[in-house]
Amino acid sequence: MERITSRRNPLCRHLKELGASKSYRESCGEFLCDGVKLLEEAVACNAKIKTVLTSSSVPFLLPVGVKVFYAERELIDSLSPLRNSQNVLFSCAFTGKSDLRISHGTYILLDGVQDPGNIGAIMRTADAFCVGSVLMYEGCADPYNPKAIRASMGAVFRQDTRHVNISELSELKKKGIRFIAAALGKDCRKVYDTNYKDAIVVIGSEGHGICEDILELCDEKTTIPIAPESQSLNAAVAAAIIMWEARQK
Amino acid sequence: MERITSRRNPLCRHLKELGASKSYRESCGEFLCDGVKLLEEAVACNAKIKTVLTSSSVPFLLPVGVKVFYAERELIDSLSPLRNSQNVLFSCAFTGKSDLRISHGTYILLDGVQDPGNIGAIMRTADAFCVGSVLMYEGCADPYNPKAIRASMGAVFRQDTRHVNISELSELKKKGIRFIAAALGKDCRKVYDTNYKDAIVVIGSEGHGICEDILELCDEKTTIPIAPESQSLNAAVAAAIIMWEARQK
Repeated sequence: MERITSRRNPLCRHLKELGASKSYRESCGEFLCDGVKLLEEAVACNAKIKTVLTSSSVPFLLPVGVKVFYAERELIDSLSPLRNSQNVLFSCAFTGKSDLRISHGTYILLDGVQDPGNIGAIMRTADAFCVGSVLMYEGCADPYNPKAIRASMGAVFRQDTRHVNISELSELKKKGIRFIAAALGKDCRKVYDTNYKDAIVVIGSEGHGICEDILELCDEKTTIPIAPESQSLNAAVAAAIIMWEARQK
Repeated sequence: MERITSRRNPLCRHLKELGASKSYRESCGEFLCDGVKLLEEAVACNAKIKTVLTSSSVPFLLPVGVKVFYAERELIDSLSPLRNSQNVLFSCAFTGKSDLRISHGTYILLDGVQDPGNIGAIMRTADAFCVGSVLMYEGCADPYNPKAIRASMGAVFRQDTRHVNISELSELKKKGIRFIAAALGKDCRKVYDTNYKDAIVVIGSEGHGICEDILELCDEKTTIPIAPESQSLNAAVAAAIIMWEARQK
Protein backbone atom coordinates (compact mmCIF):
# COMPACT_ATOMS: atom_id res chain seq x y z
CA MET A 1 0.00 0.00 0.00
CA GLU A 2 1.52 3.32 -1.04
CA ARG A 3 2.08 5.82 1.74
CA ILE A 4 1.28 9.51 1.29
CA THR A 5 2.87 12.04 3.59
CA SER A 6 2.43 15.42 1.93
CA ARG A 7 -0.63 17.57 1.42
CA ARG A 8 0.90 18.66 -1.85
CA ASN A 9 0.63 15.15 -3.26
CA PRO A 10 -1.67 15.34 -6.34
CA LEU A 11 -4.09 12.80 -4.83
CA CYS A 12 -4.46 14.93 -1.70
CA ARG A 13 -5.15 18.01 -3.78
CA HIS A 14 -7.69 16.05 -5.81
CA LEU A 15 -9.57 14.77 -2.76
CA LYS A 16 -9.55 18.17 -1.06
CA GLU A 17 -10.94 19.83 -4.16
CA LEU A 18 -13.62 17.14 -4.54
CA GLY A 19 -14.82 18.01 -1.04
CA ALA A 20 -14.71 21.75 -1.60
CA SER A 21 -16.00 22.43 -5.09
CA LYS A 22 -19.16 21.41 -6.91
CA SER A 23 -17.75 22.47 -10.28
CA TYR A 24 -14.61 20.39 -9.69
CA ARG A 25 -16.78 17.37 -8.81
CA GLU A 26 -18.72 17.85 -12.02
CA SER A 27 -15.61 18.31 -14.16
CA CYS A 28 -14.05 15.07 -12.77
CA GLY A 29 -17.29 13.11 -12.53
CA GLU A 30 -16.36 12.08 -9.00
CA PHE A 31 -17.43 12.88 -5.44
CA LEU A 32 -15.87 12.55 -1.99
CA CYS A 33 -17.12 10.34 0.86
CA ASP A 34 -15.79 9.64 4.34
CA GLY A 35 -15.95 6.91 6.93
CA VAL A 36 -15.60 3.15 6.94
CA LYS A 37 -19.35 2.64 7.27
CA LEU A 38 -20.03 4.62 4.11
CA LEU A 39 -17.25 2.71 2.34
CA GLU A 40 -18.94 -0.55 3.34
CA GLU A 41 -22.24 0.76 1.92
CA ALA A 42 -20.48 1.81 -1.29
CA VAL A 43 -19.08 -1.72 -1.72
CA ALA A 44 -22.47 -3.31 -0.96
CA CYS A 45 -24.19 -1.05 -3.53
CA ASN A 46 -21.54 -1.64 -6.23
CA ALA A 47 -20.70 2.05 -6.33
CA LYS A 48 -17.79 2.89 -8.62
CA ILE A 49 -15.15 3.47 -5.94
CA LYS A 50 -12.06 5.10 -7.44
CA THR A 51 -9.54 5.80 -4.70
CA VAL A 52 -9.36 5.11 -0.94
CA LEU A 53 -7.10 7.02 1.45
CA THR A 54 -7.01 5.44 4.90
CA SER A 55 -5.03 5.58 8.14
CA SER A 56 -5.72 1.94 9.04
CA SER A 57 -6.48 -1.30 7.27
CA VAL A 58 -9.96 -1.60 5.77
CA PRO A 59 -11.80 -4.44 7.57
CA PHE A 60 -13.45 -5.89 4.43
CA LEU A 61 -12.57 -6.71 0.83
CA LEU A 62 -12.55 -3.91 -1.70
CA PRO A 63 -13.40 -4.54 -5.36
CA VAL A 64 -10.53 -5.25 -7.74
CA GLY A 65 -9.15 -2.08 -9.30
CA VAL A 66 -9.72 0.23 -6.33
CA LYS A 67 -6.51 2.08 -5.51
CA VAL A 68 -5.75 2.20 -1.77
CA PHE A 69 -3.29 4.66 -0.21
CA TYR A 70 -2.18 5.09 3.37
CA ALA A 71 -1.83 8.38 5.25
CA GLU A 72 -1.70 9.56 8.85
CA ARG A 73 -5.01 10.53 10.43
CA GLU A 74 -3.86 14.14 10.71
CA LEU A 75 -3.36 14.41 6.95
CA ILE A 76 -6.77 12.83 6.29
CA ASP A 77 -8.39 15.33 8.69
CA SER A 78 -6.77 18.22 6.84
CA LEU A 79 -8.32 17.09 3.52
CA SER A 80 -11.87 16.60 4.75
CA PRO A 81 -14.29 19.54 4.75
CA LEU A 82 -16.11 17.92 7.69
CA ARG A 83 -15.17 17.60 11.33
CA ASN A 84 -14.58 14.09 12.66
CA SER A 85 -13.68 12.86 9.21
CA GLN A 86 -12.93 9.42 10.66
CA ASN A 87 -10.02 7.49 9.25
CA VAL A 88 -11.09 6.91 5.66
CA LEU A 89 -11.69 9.23 2.73
CA PHE A 90 -12.66 7.84 -0.66
CA SER A 91 -13.87 9.01 -4.04
CA CYS A 92 -16.61 7.50 -6.19
CA ALA A 93 -17.57 8.11 -9.83
CA PHE A 94 -21.01 9.48 -10.59
CA THR A 95 -23.24 6.83 -12.07
CA GLY A 96 -24.76 7.64 -15.47
CA LYS A 97 -28.41 8.48 -15.04
CA SER A 98 -31.00 6.70 -17.16
CA ASP A 99 -33.82 8.80 -18.60
CA LEU A 100 -36.24 10.06 -16.00
CA ARG A 101 -39.34 7.88 -15.98
CA ILE A 102 -42.21 8.58 -13.66
CA SER A 103 -44.80 5.85 -13.39
CA HIS A 104 -46.78 4.61 -10.40
CA GLY A 105 -45.80 5.85 -7.02
CA THR A 106 -44.83 9.06 -5.32
CA TYR A 107 -41.94 11.35 -6.15
CA ILE A 108 -40.49 14.27 -4.27
CA LEU A 109 -39.51 17.53 -5.98
CA LEU A 110 -37.32 19.92 -3.98
CA ASP A 111 -37.40 23.60 -4.88
CA GLY A 112 -34.75 25.83 -3.34
CA VAL A 113 -33.85 23.52 -0.43
CA GLN A 114 -30.44 24.98 0.32
CA ASP A 115 -29.23 23.05 3.35
CA PRO A 116 -27.09 20.05 2.30
CA GLY A 117 -27.90 18.28 5.59
CA ASN A 118 -31.60 18.46 4.70
CA ILE A 119 -30.92 17.15 1.17
CA GLY A 120 -29.01 14.19 2.63
CA ALA A 121 -31.71 13.49 5.23
CA ILE A 122 -34.38 13.59 2.50
CA MET A 123 -32.39 11.09 0.37
CA ARG A 124 -32.08 8.84 3.43
CA THR A 125 -35.81 8.97 4.22
CA ALA A 126 -36.78 8.50 0.54
CA ASP A 127 -34.58 5.40 0.42
CA ALA A 128 -36.08 4.07 3.68
CA PHE A 129 -39.66 4.70 2.51
CA CYS A 130 -39.09 3.45 -1.08
CA VAL A 131 -39.86 6.74 -2.86
CA GLY A 132 -39.24 6.63 -6.63
CA SER A 133 -36.92 9.59 -7.21
CA VAL A 134 -35.91 12.76 -5.44
CA LEU A 135 -36.02 15.50 -8.08
CA MET A 136 -34.26 18.80 -7.54
CA TYR A 137 -35.24 22.08 -9.11
CA GLU A 138 -33.30 25.34 -9.00
CA GLY A 139 -31.58 26.61 -5.88
CA CYS A 140 -31.08 23.26 -4.12
CA ALA A 141 -27.81 22.29 -2.45
CA ASP A 142 -25.66 19.79 -4.32
CA PRO A 143 -26.57 16.22 -3.27
CA TYR A 144 -22.86 15.37 -3.69
CA ASN A 145 -21.80 17.98 -1.15
CA PRO A 146 -19.94 16.04 1.61
CA LYS A 147 -22.47 17.18 4.24
CA ALA A 148 -25.34 15.83 2.13
CA ILE A 149 -23.50 12.56 1.53
CA ARG A 150 -22.78 12.06 5.22
CA ALA A 151 -26.41 12.85 6.15
CA SER A 152 -27.64 10.41 3.50
CA MET A 153 -25.95 7.55 5.42
CA GLY A 154 -25.39 5.52 2.25
CA ALA A 155 -28.69 6.39 0.54
CA VAL A 156 -26.62 8.40 -1.99
CA PHE A 157 -25.58 5.02 -3.49
CA ARG A 158 -29.13 3.69 -3.77
CA GLN A 159 -31.64 6.51 -4.05
CA ASP A 160 -32.19 8.09 -7.48
CA THR A 161 -31.66 11.83 -6.95
CA ARG A 162 -31.37 14.18 -9.93
CA HIS A 163 -31.69 17.75 -11.13
CA VAL A 164 -34.66 18.56 -13.37
CA ASN A 165 -35.56 21.63 -15.40
CA ILE A 166 -38.91 23.20 -16.09
CA SER A 167 -39.32 21.62 -19.54
CA GLU A 168 -38.79 18.10 -18.15
CA LEU A 169 -41.39 18.84 -15.48
CA SER A 170 -43.84 20.25 -18.05
CA GLU A 171 -43.43 17.05 -20.07
CA LEU A 172 -44.36 14.96 -17.03
CA LYS A 173 -47.39 17.16 -16.45
CA LYS A 174 -48.52 16.55 -20.05
CA LYS A 175 -48.23 12.80 -19.45
CA GLY A 176 -50.78 13.06 -16.65
CA ILE A 177 -48.57 13.22 -13.57
CA ARG A 178 -50.20 15.32 -10.85
CA PHE A 179 -48.20 17.97 -9.01
CA ILE A 180 -49.03 18.54 -5.33
CA ALA A 181 -47.59 21.55 -3.49
CA ALA A 182 -46.76 21.12 0.21
CA ALA A 183 -47.96 24.39 1.69
CA LEU A 184 -49.34 26.15 4.72
CA GLY A 185 -52.84 27.53 4.90
CA LYS A 186 -56.50 26.77 5.12
CA ASP A 187 -57.10 26.24 1.40
CA CYS A 188 -55.05 23.01 1.45
CA ARG A 189 -56.13 19.40 1.68
CA LYS A 190 -54.78 17.74 4.83
CA VAL A 191 -51.76 15.53 4.30
CA TYR A 192 -53.68 12.42 5.46
CA ASP A 193 -56.55 13.10 3.01
CA THR A 194 -54.31 13.53 -0.04
CA ASN A 195 -53.92 10.96 -2.83
CA TYR A 196 -50.23 10.64 -3.70
CA LYS A 197 -50.54 8.01 -6.45
CA ASP A 198 -48.65 8.92 -9.63
CA ALA A 199 -47.87 12.31 -8.17
CA ILE A 200 -44.93 14.58 -7.55
CA VAL A 201 -45.04 16.34 -4.17
CA VAL A 202 -43.19 19.67 -4.15
CA ILE A 203 -41.29 20.81 -1.03
CA GLY A 204 -40.24 24.45 -1.19
CA SER A 205 -37.58 26.40 0.64
CA GLU A 206 -38.33 27.16 4.29
CA GLY A 207 -37.78 30.85 3.72
CA HIS A 208 -39.45 31.47 0.38
CA GLY A 209 -41.84 28.58 -0.25
CA ILE A 210 -42.37 27.30 -3.80
CA CYS A 211 -41.47 29.46 -6.81
CA GLU A 212 -44.08 30.68 -9.30
CA ASP A 213 -42.90 28.42 -12.18
CA ILE A 214 -43.51 25.30 -10.13
CA LEU A 215 -46.68 26.55 -8.44
CA GLU A 216 -48.21 26.97 -11.91
CA LEU A 217 -47.76 23.23 -12.50
CA CYS A 218 -49.48 22.28 -9.24
CA ASP A 219 -52.95 20.74 -9.30
CA GLU A 220 -53.53 20.87 -5.57
CA LYS A 221 -52.03 21.77 -2.21
CA THR A 222 -51.45 19.56 0.79
CA THR A 223 -50.68 20.66 4.34
CA ILE A 224 -49.39 19.15 7.58
CA PRO A 225 -51.45 20.71 10.38
CA ILE A 226 -49.25 22.35 13.01
CA ALA A 227 -49.73 24.52 16.09
CA PRO A 228 -50.51 28.14 15.14
CA GLU A 229 -47.46 29.60 16.96
CA SER A 230 -44.98 27.47 15.07
CA GLN A 231 -44.61 28.85 11.61
CA SER A 232 -43.34 25.84 9.69
CA LEU A 233 -41.59 22.49 9.88
CA ASN A 234 -38.01 21.73 8.89
CA ALA A 235 -37.96 20.80 5.17
CA ALA A 236 -36.58 17.30 5.86
CA VAL A 237 -39.23 16.72 8.54
CA ALA A 238 -42.06 17.93 6.27
CA ALA A 239 -40.78 15.70 3.45
CA ALA A 240 -40.58 12.74 5.85
CA ILE A 241 -44.18 13.13 7.07
CA ILE A 242 -45.41 13.35 3.47
CA MET A 243 -43.40 10.30 2.33
CA TRP A 244 -44.66 8.41 5.37
CA GLU A 245 -48.30 9.29 4.65
CA ALA A 246 -47.83 8.43 0.96
CA ARG A 247 -46.45 5.04 1.98
CA GLN A 248 -49.48 4.21 4.14
CA LYS A 249 -51.91 4.66 1.22
CA MET B 1 -26.98 53.34 21.13
CA GLU B 2 -23.46 52.54 22.29
CA ARG B 3 -21.02 51.52 19.58
CA ILE B 4 -18.57 48.64 20.08
CA THR B 5 -15.50 48.43 17.88
CA SER B 6 -13.15 45.99 19.59
CA ARG B 7 -13.34 42.24 20.03
CA ARG B 8 -11.65 42.72 23.38
CA ASN B 9 -14.68 44.60 24.69
CA PRO B 10 -16.04 42.59 27.68
CA LEU B 11 -19.46 42.23 26.01
CA CYS B 12 -17.85 40.71 22.91
CA ARG B 13 -15.90 38.25 25.02
CA HIS B 14 -19.08 37.37 26.90
CA LEU B 15 -21.11 36.71 23.74
CA LYS B 16 -18.34 34.72 22.10
CA GLU B 17 -17.96 32.53 25.18
CA LEU B 18 -21.74 32.02 25.40
CA GLY B 19 -21.64 30.61 21.87
CA ALA B 20 -18.60 28.43 22.49
CA SER B 21 -19.00 26.90 25.94
CA LYS B 22 -21.79 24.97 27.61
CA SER B 23 -20.24 25.38 31.07
CA TYR B 24 -19.96 29.15 30.57
CA ARG B 25 -23.64 29.27 29.53
CA GLU B 26 -24.55 27.36 32.67
CA SER B 27 -22.42 29.51 34.94
CA CYS B 28 -23.99 32.73 33.54
CA GLY B 29 -27.49 31.34 33.14
CA GLU B 30 -27.61 32.80 29.62
CA PHE B 31 -27.46 31.52 26.05
CA LEU B 32 -26.66 33.06 22.67
CA CYS B 33 -29.06 33.46 19.74
CA ASP B 34 -28.66 35.02 16.30
CA GLY B 35 -30.83 36.60 13.66
CA VAL B 36 -33.59 39.16 13.57
CA LYS B 37 -36.25 36.47 13.08
CA LEU B 38 -35.22 34.66 16.25
CA LEU B 39 -35.14 37.99 18.10
CA GLU B 40 -38.71 38.64 16.96
CA GLU B 41 -39.73 35.20 18.28
CA ALA B 42 -37.96 35.89 21.58
CA VAL B 43 -39.95 39.13 21.98
CA ALA B 44 -43.22 37.41 21.06
CA CYS B 45 -42.57 34.62 23.60
CA ASN B 46 -41.56 37.03 26.40
CA ALA B 47 -38.11 35.47 26.59
CA LYS B 48 -35.79 37.23 29.03
CA ILE B 49 -33.61 39.04 26.48
CA LYS B 50 -30.52 40.48 28.13
CA THR B 51 -28.31 42.13 25.51
CA VAL B 52 -28.60 42.78 21.76
CA LEU B 53 -25.62 43.47 19.50
CA THR B 54 -26.67 44.58 16.03
CA SER B 55 -25.25 46.13 12.88
CA SER B 56 -28.52 47.79 11.87
CA SER B 57 -31.63 49.11 13.56
CA VAL B 58 -34.02 46.49 14.90
CA PRO B 59 -37.34 46.80 12.99
CA PHE B 60 -39.60 46.29 16.03
CA LEU B 61 -39.87 47.41 19.63
CA LEU B 62 -37.74 45.66 22.23
CA PRO B 63 -38.91 45.28 25.83
CA VAL B 64 -37.85 47.94 28.30
CA GLY B 65 -34.54 47.12 29.97
CA VAL B 66 -32.93 45.32 27.04
CA LYS B 67 -29.48 46.78 26.38
CA VAL B 68 -28.78 47.40 22.69
CA PHE B 69 -25.26 47.89 21.29
CA TYR B 70 -24.11 48.60 17.77
CA ALA B 71 -21.18 46.92 15.97
CA GLU B 72 -20.02 46.40 12.38
CA ARG B 73 -21.19 43.21 10.70
CA GLU B 74 -17.62 41.95 10.53
CA LEU B 75 -17.25 42.11 14.31
CA ILE B 76 -20.59 40.33 14.79
CA ASP B 77 -19.49 37.57 12.38
CA SER B 78 -16.30 37.08 14.35
CA LEU B 79 -18.27 36.45 17.56
CA SER B 80 -20.73 33.94 16.18
CA PRO B 81 -19.87 30.23 16.14
CA LEU B 82 -22.14 29.82 13.10
CA ARG B 83 -21.68 30.86 9.51
CA ASN B 84 -24.07 33.47 8.11
CA SER B 85 -24.63 34.86 11.56
CA GLN B 86 -26.86 37.57 10.12
CA ASN B 87 -26.68 41.02 11.60
CA VAL B 88 -27.95 40.45 15.12
CA LEU B 89 -26.58 38.50 18.07
CA PHE B 90 -28.39 38.48 21.39
CA SER B 91 -28.35 36.74 24.74
CA CYS B 92 -31.29 35.43 26.75
CA ALA B 93 -31.53 34.22 30.34
CA PHE B 94 -32.56 30.62 30.97
CA THR B 95 -36.08 30.41 32.32
CA GLY B 96 -36.50 28.67 35.64
CA LYS B 97 -38.02 25.23 35.11
CA SER B 98 -41.06 24.22 37.07
CA ASP B 99 -41.15 20.66 38.43
CA LEU B 100 -41.51 18.02 35.78
CA ARG B 101 -45.08 16.86 35.60
CA ILE B 102 -46.17 14.19 33.18
CA SER B 103 -49.90 13.81 32.73
CA HIS B 104 -51.97 13.04 29.66
CA GLY B 105 -50.25 13.12 26.33
CA THR B 106 -47.05 12.01 24.73
CA TYR B 107 -43.51 12.92 25.73
CA ILE B 108 -40.21 12.35 23.96
CA LEU B 109 -37.10 11.13 25.77
CA LEU B 110 -33.80 11.47 23.91
CA ASP B 111 -30.95 9.17 24.89
CA GLY B 112 -27.50 9.95 23.49
CA VAL B 113 -28.70 12.13 20.58
CA GLN B 114 -25.46 13.98 19.98
CA ASP B 115 -26.14 16.16 16.97
CA PRO B 116 -27.29 19.66 18.06
CA GLY B 117 -29.06 20.14 14.71
CA ASN B 118 -31.18 17.08 15.45
CA ILE B 119 -31.94 18.34 18.98
CA GLY B 120 -33.09 21.68 17.53
CA ALA B 121 -35.18 20.00 14.82
CA ILE B 122 -36.83 17.77 17.44
CA MET B 123 -37.69 20.82 19.61
CA ARG B 124 -39.17 22.50 16.54
CA THR B 125 -41.29 19.46 15.59
CA ALA B 126 -42.39 18.89 19.21
CA ASP B 127 -43.55 22.50 19.35
CA ALA B 128 -45.39 22.18 16.02
CA PHE B 129 -47.09 18.92 17.05
CA CYS B 130 -47.88 20.06 20.64
CA VAL B 131 -45.80 17.43 22.44
CA GLY B 132 -45.64 17.91 26.23
CA SER B 133 -41.91 17.95 26.97
CA VAL B 134 -38.72 16.88 25.30
CA LEU B 135 -36.69 15.08 27.98
CA MET B 136 -32.99 14.50 27.58
CA TYR B 137 -31.03 11.71 29.17
CA GLU B 138 -27.25 11.29 29.19
CA GLY B 139 -25.09 11.95 26.17
CA CYS B 140 -27.37 14.41 24.38
CA ALA B 141 -26.13 17.63 22.80
CA ASP B 142 -26.89 20.82 24.72
CA PRO B 143 -30.25 22.28 23.57
CA TYR B 144 -28.70 25.73 24.14
CA ASN B 145 -25.87 25.06 21.68
CA PRO B 146 -26.19 27.77 18.98
CA LYS B 147 -26.71 25.13 16.26
CA ALA B 148 -29.60 23.60 18.22
CA ILE B 149 -31.11 27.03 18.82
CA ARG B 150 -30.91 27.99 15.18
CA ALA B 151 -32.44 24.64 14.11
CA SER B 152 -35.25 25.08 16.65
CA MET B 153 -36.44 28.19 14.77
CA GLY B 154 -37.85 29.79 17.89
CA ALA B 155 -39.17 26.61 19.50
CA VAL B 156 -36.45 27.00 22.14
CA PHE B 157 -38.56 29.83 23.61
CA ARG B 158 -41.80 27.80 23.72
CA GLN B 159 -41.06 24.09 23.97
CA ASP B 160 -40.27 22.62 27.40
CA THR B 161 -36.94 20.80 26.97
CA ARG B 162 -35.03 19.55 30.01
CA HIS B 163 -32.43 17.12 31.26
CA VAL B 164 -33.66 14.22 33.37
CA ASN B 165 -31.84 11.60 35.43
CA ILE B 166 -32.64 7.96 36.01
CA SER B 167 -34.29 8.50 39.40
CA GLU B 168 -36.71 11.10 37.97
CA LEU B 169 -37.59 8.65 35.22
CA SER B 170 -38.05 5.79 37.70
CA GLU B 171 -40.43 8.02 39.69
CA LEU B 172 -42.53 8.58 36.57
CA LYS B 173 -42.57 4.86 35.91
CA LYS B 174 -43.88 4.25 39.44
CA LYS B 175 -46.66 6.75 38.78
CA GLY B 176 -47.89 4.61 35.89
CA ILE B 177 -46.30 6.35 32.92
CA ARG B 178 -45.51 3.83 30.18
CA PHE B 179 -42.12 3.86 28.46
CA ILE B 180 -42.02 2.95 24.77
CA ALA B 181 -38.68 2.31 23.04
CA ALA B 182 -38.38 3.31 19.38
CA ALA B 183 -36.43 0.42 17.91
CA LEU B 184 -35.76 -1.68 14.87
CA GLY B 185 -36.74 -5.31 14.58
CA LYS B 186 -39.57 -7.76 14.20
CA ASP B 187 -40.50 -7.99 17.88
CA CYS B 188 -41.83 -4.41 17.87
CA ARG B 189 -45.34 -3.08 17.51
CA LYS B 190 -45.73 -0.95 14.38
CA VAL B 191 -45.70 2.78 14.99
CA TYR B 192 -49.28 3.15 13.68
CA ASP B 193 -50.57 0.42 16.03
CA THR B 194 -49.00 1.88 19.18
CA ASN B 195 -50.92 3.68 21.92
CA TYR B 196 -48.99 6.81 22.94
CA LYS B 197 -51.37 8.06 25.60
CA ASP B 198 -49.62 8.96 28.90
CA ALA B 199 -46.40 7.56 27.53
CA ILE B 200 -42.78 8.55 27.07
CA VAL B 201 -41.31 7.48 23.73
CA VAL B 202 -37.54 6.94 23.83
CA ILE B 203 -35.37 7.83 20.83
CA GLY B 204 -31.83 6.47 21.08
CA SER B 205 -28.61 7.44 19.41
CA GLU B 206 -28.34 6.46 15.73
CA GLY B 207 -25.09 4.64 16.39
CA HIS B 208 -25.74 2.87 19.67
CA GLY B 209 -29.49 2.69 20.16
CA ILE B 210 -30.96 2.99 23.67
CA CYS B 211 -28.82 2.33 26.76
CA GLU B 212 -29.52 -0.53 29.17
CA ASP B 213 -30.71 1.71 32.04
CA ILE B 214 -33.47 3.15 29.92
CA LEU B 215 -34.34 -0.10 28.12
CA GLU B 216 -35.08 -1.64 31.53
CA LEU B 217 -37.80 0.97 32.06
CA CYS B 218 -39.46 0.25 28.72
CA ASP B 219 -42.77 -1.59 28.62
CA GLU B 220 -42.88 -2.06 24.88
CA LYS B 221 -41.14 -1.33 21.60
CA THR B 222 -42.43 0.53 18.59
CA THR B 223 -40.94 0.55 15.09
CA ILE B 224 -41.25 2.55 11.88
CA PRO B 225 -41.14 0.01 9.04
CA ILE B 226 -38.40 0.84 6.53
CA ALA B 227 -36.84 -0.80 3.47
CA PRO B 228 -34.46 -3.62 4.47
CA GLU B 229 -31.40 -2.05 2.79
CA SER B 230 -31.68 1.18 4.73
CA GLN B 231 -30.51 0.56 8.25
CA SER B 232 -32.20 3.36 10.13
CA LEU B 233 -33.80 6.79 9.97
CA ASN B 234 -32.28 10.08 11.08
CA ALA B 235 -33.14 10.60 14.79
CA ALA B 236 -35.06 13.83 14.07
CA VAL B 237 -37.02 12.13 11.28
CA ALA B 238 -37.85 9.10 13.46
CA ALA B 239 -38.97 11.40 16.29
CA ALA B 240 -41.10 13.40 13.84
CA ILE B 241 -42.92 10.33 12.49
CA ILE B 242 -43.63 9.14 16.04
CA MET B 243 -44.87 12.56 17.20
CA TRP B 244 -47.04 12.77 14.06
CA GLU B 245 -48.56 9.32 14.67
CA ALA B 246 -49.11 10.14 18.34
CA ARG B 247 -50.93 13.30 17.29
CA GLN B 248 -53.34 11.43 15.02
CA LYS B 249 -54.56 9.17 17.82
